[in-house]
This record gives sequence, C-alpha cells and structure tokens, in this order.
Amino acid sequence: MKGREPPPPLAAILAKVTRPECLVDLDRARANATRMAEKARRSGVAFRPHFKTHQSAAVGEIFCDLDITGITVSSLEMASYFADAGFRDITVAFPLNPRRLPELDALAGRVALGVLVDNPAAADALDGFGRPVRVWIEIDSGQGRSGIPWNEPAAMVALARHVRRVTGRPLAGLLTHAGHSYTAGSPARVREIHAETISRMTRLAGELERADGSRPLVSVGDTPCCALAAELSGVDEVRPGNFVFFDATQLAIGSCAPSDLALAVACPVVGVYPARREIVLHGGAIHLSKDSLVADGERVFGLLAAPDAGGLGLPDPRSKVIALSQEHAVARVPDPDRWRVGDVALVFPAHACLTAEMFSEYRATTGERLPRFVRQTAGSPLRG
Amino acid sequence: MKGREPPPPLAAILAKVTRPECLVDLDRARANATRMAEKARRSGVAFRPHFKTHQSAAVGEIFCDLDITGITVSSLEMASYFADAGFRDITVAFPLNPRRLPELDALAGRVALGVLVDNPAAADALDGFGRPVRVWIEIDSGQGRSGIPWNEPAAMVALARHVRRVTGRPLAGLLTHAGHSYTAGSPARVREIHAETISRMTRLAGELERADGSRPLVSVGDTPCCALAAELSGVDEVRPGNFVFFDATQLAIGSCAPSDLALAVACPVVGVYPARREIVLHGGAIHLSKDSLVADGERVFGLLAAPDAGGLGLPDPRSKVIALSQEHAVARVPDPDRWRVGDVALVFPAHACLTAEMFSEYRATTGERLPRFVRQTAGSPLRG
Repeated sequence: MKGREPPPPLAAILAKVTRPECLVDLDRARANATRMAEKARRSGVAFRPHFKTHQSAAVGEIFCDLDITGITVSSLEMASYFADAGFRDITVAFPLNPRRLPELDALAGRVALGVLVDNPAAADALDGFGRPVRVWIEIDSGQGRSGIPWNEPAAMVALARHVRRVTGRPLAGLLTHAGHSYTAGSPARVREIHAETISRMTRLAGELERADGSRPLVSVGDTPCCALAAELSGVDEVRPGNFVFFDATQLAIGSCAPSDLALAVACPVVGVYPARREIVLHGGAIHLSKDSLVADGERVFGLLAAPDAGGLGLPDPRSKVIALSQEHAVARVPDPDRWRVGDVALVFPAHACLTAEMFSEYRATTGERLPRFVRQTAGSPLRG
Repeated sequence: MKGREPPPPLAAILAKVTRPECLVDLDRARANATRMAEKARRSGVAFRPHFKTHQSAAVGEIFCDLDITGITVSSLEMASYFADAGFRDITVAFPLNPRRLPELDALAGRVALGVLVDNPAAADALDGFGRPVRVWIEIDSGQGRSGIPWNEPAAMVALARHVRRVTGRPLAGLLTHAGHSYTAGSPARVREIHAETISRMTRLAGELERADGSRPLVSVGDTPCCALAAELSGVDEVRPGNFVFFDATQLAIGSCAPSDLALAVACPVVGVYPARREIVLHGGAIHLSKDSLVADGERVFGLLAAPDAGGLGLPDPRSKVIALSQEHAVARVPDPDRWRVGDVALVFPAHACLTAEMFSEYRATTGERLPRFVRQTAGSPLRG
C-alpha cells in the first residue's frame, strides 16, 4: 500500500482474482473483536481469544490494539508462530502430548505457557519438567470430547493433587470448551448451555476449594455461548475464537448478524447451468474445507454474497453451495441468468476456522495481503 | 536413506512420531498402480492417471516406471509442479477459467496441454490463443456437476463446432467424470453406472461423427468404476486417481481390499476414555479433512489400524473416528484399555485425496520423506 492512497474498492480487487482467494474484512473483524472485548471487560472477566481461527499476526494486531495480551492457540506450532510475533502469554488449549516435551520446554522458555491435562499420564510427563508452566485441568462440561467429565469431581480432585505433586506448583485452574453449544438448536438453548456450563464449572471449583483450600480459576469459551450470553460473568476467563470472522454456521446458530461475517472466499465462476439453477465455482473442499451445516434439511457448505463496495456484502440465504469436490463447488442460485463464466462469487463458508486453514495468506478487502501461520506438516522441527 | 541399509520397521518410525504425519506405503501404492495399468493395457485403452490424489513427484515415479507418460491434474498449479518434475503431457481436468489465460499460455509452452470446456464463453477465451492445446468437451454423464448434459447432443455438437472455429483445430474428444459412482450403493450398481457411462459417451461420440464426420476420443475415469469394472474397453482413455492410495470410502464402496489402503495418518493418542469406549487423537479436520462416509447410519471420518511391521496394517471396522474438531479426533474403539496416552494410532481416512492435501510431505513406511506439491494460495504467480 502506498502512503495515503485510498484503498481500491472491492470490485477492483475482485477484477484481479484468478483463483480462490481468502478475503478478510478487517473493519468487520475489528468490530467483532471490539464487541467481545467490551463484553468481557463489562463482565469483569479476562479475555484470552483463541487465535486458531485466524492464525495471523496481522489479525492479532487488532487484539493488541484492544490491550489484549493473553491468547489461546490449539497447537505448539501455532504458539511458536505467535511467540515470534511478540505474544508472551499463551495457553495451548489442546491435551498435553507427552511426545512433544522438548518443544514444550523450548516454548516455555520463551513465553508464559499454559497447558491442559485430563489424565495422570499426561501430568506425569511434566515430572521433572524444568520450566514453570501453568497447568489447567480440562473438564468435559458436556461436549463429550476431551476432559474429565464434569460429574466426576473425585477424579478432578485426584488429578489436581497429582498435578501439584508432580509439578510442585499450584494448579492454574479448570478449563472447558462447551462445544455442544454448536448443536444446541436455538439461541435460548445456547444460553441455557452457557448457564449450565458456568454452574458445573463453579461447582467443581467449589469442590476443589473444599478439598484443598484454594479456589482454582475457571476458564470457558466457545463462540456461540460467548456471543449469545447477555454478559460473561461467573467465570474468570473466556476464550472464544471464531467470533473474529464468524461464518454461515454461526449465522444459523444466531451468534452473529449477516453484516458481521468477516471472511469470504472469492471463487471464479467456471460454469453456469440455468436448467439446474446451479453454477460451478473454482472453490472446492481444498479451499472451503468439507465442513457443512444443515439448513432446511440440506447440507450447505457456504452462502454466496453479492459483492458490495462497503465490504464483503451480505449473504444471500437462497444462494448456497450444496456440493463440493476437491476443486469444484456447486452452488444453487435463484438467478442463474445473472451469472456468467468469468465472474467471481464470494462464498461465506460453513466454518471459517477450517476455511482459513486452507490458505497461506488472506487478502484484506482493502487490498493488502495478510500473512498467516502456515503449518509445516512434518520434517521441520519447531524453532526453540 | 543410507546405501543398502534395510529400512527401519514401521514401529521404529512410529516411535519418533510427535504430531500427525501422513504415511504412505509405497509397496501398496505400486501394487495398486500396477494393477490399474495392467487392466488398462489388457483392455487396450490409454491410462492417464489423475495425480490430484498424491500430488507428489515421488509417487509419480511409480507411474513412470510403468511407462505412463500422460497424466491428469485438477489445477494449473499442479500442472506446473508436474511439468517441473518432467511430465510433458498433462490434461487439466477442471473447467477452463478464462481469468487464467496467461498461466495457461505459459504452461502450453512447456507441455502438451489438454483443457476442458463445456460452454461457449470458455471456448471464446481460446480465440486467438497462440499455443496449441487439446480441447476436450466435458460431458455430464450423470453426476450433475460440470459438463454438457449427456442427453443434450445438439448442444454438444454446437460447442464442438464452436471450439473448432475458435481454435482452428480439431476437437480432442469428449471427457466425463462419473462421480455419481461414489454414491451408487453397491458394486453391481457401480458397474451399471460404468456401462451406462460408456453407452452415453459412445452415443454422443457417434452423434458428433454423424454430424461432422470425425469421431472424437472418449475419456472417462473415476476410481469406483475403473476398479470395479472387469475390464475397461469401450473408451479411449481412463483417468482414475484415488486408486493409488484408496481410502475408507473406497473400501465401503467395494473398490479395494483392506490390504490395498496405502495412506494413513499417524496420530498421537492424547486421551483415553474407557467409560465412553473412546480415545482422543491429535489428528483433526486440518489433518484428516472433514470428509466422511456413512457406515451403519453413522458419520465416519476414518478407520483405525493396528500397526503392522509388514506395512500400514489393516483397518479395524470397529475402531472408527466418529467426530473431528480442528485438531482433535474422537475415535470409538472396542478395546479402550489397550490404548495409552502417548501411543500412536494409524487412521485410514475417509477420503485420501483431501487428507493428502493437508500435508506438505509424506513419510514412506520405509522412512523416507516424500515431498509433494504445496499449494500457494495467493500472491505467488505461477512460474511460466
């Protein structure tokens, strides 16, 4: 970008698109981040956003501007990337993997690191671990993925004691991801899940305090609950991530408004089939990811938008991607005659986190290229 | 690999795995490739394997050893990668995108290039195109994705004439991907679809010959049909791709035997939940892809194997990945007590092509690292 030249309008950017590009509307992302940060501040809880959604130091700056310094990531690689970008307080919200202690050690030498355990074997891996790390016990508050089940307080107390014994340090706290909010079915039920999660986690924290005399911190965080709850008090920390971009799934859940959608994939139109009322886009499973939502009984991989000079525009609920192969998307559209081979369609994906992962960089709607973390999948040891 | 040292057994390789790695059994891949090449040879049809599955020059060598020189890819980037690797006869089996003519032109200067069109606008893009390219008309033989519908011969003849007029050259032929074979439901129905596809394509080729005097080539290709058909005659060329690795979907279709599965992801076990009969693996949607099959009414993202010194082992149909988040897999297993945090599970994915795309390199079960094409998603113009 040169000096003070105004950014090119989106139409000028799309005119140069030749293959799928991942567009980010930084104004929308900033508004989403600001809203969540203010809600956390108003509620008196710490805000530790999950950066697995955007995985970009450039998007991370939005949070720095909001004076957010603690972040969440989902892998050691991602933690290393954000440590390089200057973040010094990072929770790796993924079960501790005993096979990666050397990398963990290297990271703990660079940043204040938080890790998750839900079993004694993982805790044992920290026996004799030289560096101080914050150890959180992961609780399964209802999702059924990882964590000690919320209704097994004795197991939680036993593990907390084990962690303290092994590490010689106090426990950081109890942490959960109420991922079952994604399939709650209604905003009211999401709010119920949030209340239930707080109640379950608070009860466990009370049990631990009764057993051992010190009250652990409580950390929760998923975008549906954090977006739909009127306020966030009752816990010590929230860790939502998806809210920075939102997506068609969050829109269907009711977590966001259409004008909050901050990420879309620009997809060249390569086929128009008026008889089927369908168009085919270059933008397949390797661009959008194969994640989907079910809307009106049909699997939907994304919603199309008409481009709009003011930003990414708004999704058209009648124009949807209904099939994906490796490189192709099939979209059903009400107005096939308005499309031409050579046009570019914008697709708001079903799941922004997975879509973002498919790209090595973003294009801001103002034109700049925004680098992001690119996972090296093997063979490249993490920098220490 | 040093000189003639024997390769380390798989157990020694898995002992060093710390995070998801994509393992390829080259012996199995070679056997799969050889079987398909021999079937094509026996049937008297050209074999132009689709390299979008493996996207690796190292795996491509298997086909060079079988004297296969013509290949299929699904993008211009992939064509460029394989051109760099020495392949000189490449069909890009994706609808021609008029926005990418400069890249097409550069590629056509390096290799004998085939492209697909199904509409006059795409054909018009070739008006005045300096380099010779083979133009195929794509036919929709029943999948409902791209191509001129098989029951619209007049549209096909009109487009063939248009292509000849615009390019000043004869048409290469008629090409289809019978992707509806994937949801056929039974091997018998897959074979019916194959027969139906040949019949529809042959009829169209006959129509064009009657209209214009010259018979076009016919190219078909999808792994279920090519694997399950007793032989492949009746067309000029076949282009299957997935067969080199196969996957849990192909196994469910009946296209392969369990011992044909040549790609699996090594996933560290990070949680064991005996009460739920589930384990949690590091190996999420960003490693396996979010593609799935439905088995016994349940979505399945992959099947677990017990490692086996002789190769990747065999899938256990009772040990399946039933949920995926960004980094986590939840696997239901009949024997949770046999698993420990710190173990490594092998997962045969639902869809090998998409899983392979998630990795920047493979690890051969004999230890070598096999580089593969890594898609640069924006900002890096193709080398000309």
